[in-house]
Amino acid sequence: MSQRSWWGWGLADRALTDSEIHALAERVGPLLPLDGAVTPVPPVPALPPPRVRPPASLASAVSGADADRVAHAYGKAYRDVVRALAARLDNPPDLVARPDTEAAVAALLAWAGDAGIAVVPYGGGSSVVGGVEYRGDGPWLSMDLGRLAGVTDVDETTLTARAGGGTFGPALEAGLKPHGLTLRHFPQSFEFSTVGGWIATRAGGHFATGPTHIDDLVQAVRVVTPIGVSESLRVPASGAGPAPDRLFLGSEGILGVITAAWLRVRPRPRRTAAATIRFDGDTAGLAAAREIVHSGLQPANCRLLDPVEAALQAGVRDGGARLLLAFESAGAPVDDLAAHAVAICRAHGGTTEPTGSSTSGAWRESFLRAPYVRDALVRLGVLIETVETACTWDRFPALHAAVVRAARSAGPRGATHVTYRVTHLYPDGPAPYFTILAAAPRGGEVDCWDAIKTAVNDAIAAHGGTVTHHHAVGRDHRPWYDAERTAPFDAALRAAKAALDPRGILNPGVLI
Amino acid sequence: MSQRSWWGWGLADRALTDSEIHALAERVGPLLPLDGAVTPVPPVPALPPPRVRPPASLASAVSGADADRVAHAYGKAYRDVVRALAARLDNPPDLVARPDTEAAVAALLAWAGDAGIAVVPYGGGSSVVGGVEYRGDGPWLSMDLGRLAGVTDVDETTLTARAGGGTFGPALEAGLKPHGLTLRHFPQSFEFSTVGGWIATRAGGHFATGPTHIDDLVQAVRVVTPIGVSESLRVPASGAGPAPDRLFLGSEGILGVITAAWLRVRPRPRRTAAATIRFDGDTAGLAAAREIVHSGLQPANCRLLDPVEAALQAGVRDGGARLLLAFESAGAPVDDLAAHAVAICRAHGGTTEPTGSSTSGAWRESFLRAPYVRDALVRLGVLIETVETACTWDRFPALHAAVVRAARSAGPRGATHVTYRVTHLYPDGPAPYFTILAAAPRGGEVDCWDAIKTAVNDAIAAHGGTVTHHHAVGRDHRPWYDAERTAPFDAALRAAKAALDPRGILNPGVLI
Repeated sequence: MSQRSWWGWGLADRALTDSEIHALAERVGPLLPLDGAVTPVPPVPALPPPRVRPPASLASAVSGADADRVAHAYGKAYRDVVRALAARLDNPPDLVARPDTEAAVAALLAWAGDAGIAVVPYGGGSSVVGGVEYRGDGPWLSMDLGRLAGVTDVDETTLTARAGGGTFGPALEAGLKPHGLTLRHFPQSFEFSTVGGWIATRAGGHFATGPTHIDDLVQAVRVVTPIGVSESLRVPASGAGPAPDRLFLGSEGILGVITAAWLRVRPRPRRTAAATIRFDGDTAGLAAAREIVHSGLQPANCRLLDPVEAALQAGVRDGGARLLLAFESAGAPVDDLAAHAVAICRAHGGTTEPTGSSTSGAWRESFLRAPYVRDALVRLGVLIETVETACTWDRFPALHAAVVRAARSAGPRGATHVTYRVTHLYPDGPAPYFTILAAAPRGGEVDCWDAIKTAVNDAIAAHGGTVTHHHAVGRDHRPWYDAERTAPFDAALRAAKAALDPRGILNPGVLI
Repeated sequence: MSQRSWWGWGLADRALTDSEIHALAERVGPLLPLDGAVTPVPPVPALPPPRVRPPASLASAVSGADADRVAHAYGKAYRDVVRALAARLDNPPDLVARPDTEAAVAALLAWAGDAGIAVVPYGGGSSVVGGVEYRGDGPWLSMDLGRLAGVTDVDETTLTARAGGGTFGPALEAGLKPHGLTLRHFPQSFEFSTVGGWIATRAGGHFATGPTHIDDLVQAVRVVTPIGVSESLRVPASGAGPAPDRLFLGSEGILGVITAAWLRVRPRPRRTAAATIRFDGDTAGLAAAREIVHSGLQPANCRLLDPVEAALQAGVRDGGARLLLAFESAGAPVDDLAAHAVAICRAHGGTTEPTGSSTSGAWRESFLRAPYVRDALVRLGVLIETVETACTWDRFPALHAAVVRAARSAGPRGATHVTYRVTHLYPDGPAPYFTILAAAPRGGEVDCWDAIKTAVNDAIAAHGGTVTHHHAVGRDHRPWYDAERTAPFDAALRAAKAALDPRGILNPGVLI
């Protein structure tokens, strides 16, 4: 059985091989002034002993073993991988708990409250924003929800399914498949993220338009808070007071532990229509994408790659941007809709590429493989960061220019490349996803990353973008989230937190 | 200029005429044992003097005139109209404020906090759940937002518009029309309800599927709370923490005063396709509607009328149910979608009615006129109540049967009719809208209404329905909302309320 990597993404045996890394080096060599070295993966660092011990009644659910603690020390951001590769584990958890019942979750919270131990809920550990890494001084426990997993109910009449909070993406889909159903929620972390983690971070998924955030796919949430269990009513819609699930969606572990949810699933798609459109530049592609959503179309995919992304990710090096367009349905016709979208693209100067072109398939392949490639790039000394936001259409051109400027001025000497794609589209604006590539100063990676992150996030905030469209806030985005939320909302959120977690043990430092 | 009715719906001069009332009596006479009397509209009752006076600095924004106080004493529920027609104003506001700036809103809140005066925000006053009627003992002020009105910005690039909280439906649409835009949010109260009221109550609107609640049409909300102003960031989407707007959506005036909002508007529809389908009974119609939404179709209208509603509201007395189906778009093709929906209906035994049939038009006419007809029925001695909810598909048949049973057993001697339509549809279930008709015991209307309301809401709760899909909670739905929300969510909401409204002056008695 494959082991999870302790230092990088996913499964250890799926990391790039040495020969793959060298091939990668040859590809990126012309772009970046790399030194040719490949950082070795260090042995697992030895840890100081845990500062706390669980009571006997909880001992079976709690581990103080180094292997568990190392694996739960960090998320999977660039700065996490860099630090792990330097054998630097800043503040590993004292303990890792794996409760297999809600009663155990509640007992752990009660004990942690009594003992003054911080508790960080841990789903798949794929956070790229410092969401699972405690940065306080005292002892802390990483609560891995992996045993509260599985699809426990599937209801074909209402197209809903109930899953444990610790259910990973593939396990969820495997539980739905025999019923001909799917959630169609495929964040890039799909294989290594969980239902509860998606809900806690308001994950964004597969669809480029329409119900793409997990927010829209949740029928009811079950949460164990330090003051009791909350499970919202299982109804298709309600107008009764502020929506209770919306308090827990995006709560990032500070209000409670998400142990289960009823999800809105759908029949597997039976009809699809897809097209790849080439535009001379991204401006025309953006205009076409805007008109597509303004016309009332809801394509499942409508992903715009700027010319550099098209070259790097999809291998089409003709200087053009690409719009990957797809419609799908469980029965309703889609051909007319796709034809209408293509007609809009043509009116904006787009040209359709022959069906069977591998552009779209190549891109999907690269999407799933990207985090492993990222890890290999880190070992090659590449600073690689992805930054995403959403802004209104009118503000995007200036925001884009400012992000490029900020990354280049804050980045290391030598080339800093900034590419982007648009992953999600709304009638009022796009959600751009920037990739920043530079040669990292060896030994100074974290400082360099911090400088770029600060400059880029400042630029995004100055140009009306949100600090995150779907990566969450965690600890890394705190300064900009602090500025983004209003004083009254801050007061309300703090009050809600104090009411639900009166001893302040849940994920301290995140959000507020 | 037309005057608003002080006792009933809308404009005084649009109430049914005497001859219309008599014609109505002849129509309902065969159904209900009425006594033939028509309650006269009493003179406006005289009120005791206000118990408080505003400071000089606020005097220009505040009225203590009887006419203002009477007009703001009640919402427009059956029990409100009955009480007004009995010249019974239980607890009229001491003062009515009409602030014309946010600074005046803030100053009024500060003064009310100092003076211990309850403040009830008032939009269009169309509440049917006791949302604008204070039931405490102390002095209170009705804050009419009607002067914070108007469309102040329209942005065609992002399809958004900013409107004051006190903007009524027709004024909003009039401001959008020159731009070829529309919100397409048409609750039955459209003419006499406001943007701020829709947001405060999570109003449900025009569309049978998809983005129908105002929740989905709000880009950013501006709220004056007692501790300061909150305006959320104007972005198409965000994953940063719990969604701030969702705290104020459905807050029913207990957290702050909604003074403005950016709304997501859309081009006026250019393509439509509609059909009316007859089913022998509502069961087949429900099955067809379910398959339509399960297939991925999002009809703008998909309204199912049970056979009695079809007869009463649309005048088709053949014992069949009707499904009113419509697709619309701002450009994308709709004919294939409508054809697919009709094919689904045919497979469930539905028959299309000839195009040009007046069924759908007749129903729309009756929809807009219904509140005036309701008032006339009240004067004829008809107890008429509408109850709405949402539940999952599997629970609807038992919920429906239980509502009918409850209304009949709690209703007065003689026939109690319970009809329903399905106003909104979700993949996981319908939102049924029940109409209850009986002969009211003269003088005992409110007690009778209370008994029916209690029995029906108990039945809904027992069968998994929410206490409200779009009418809000107010004061009348409190017992069931108290049961519906979980203890942790209750604690969080109370804490948020205490943080934003530390002196507890905002709409006391509503929600919590």
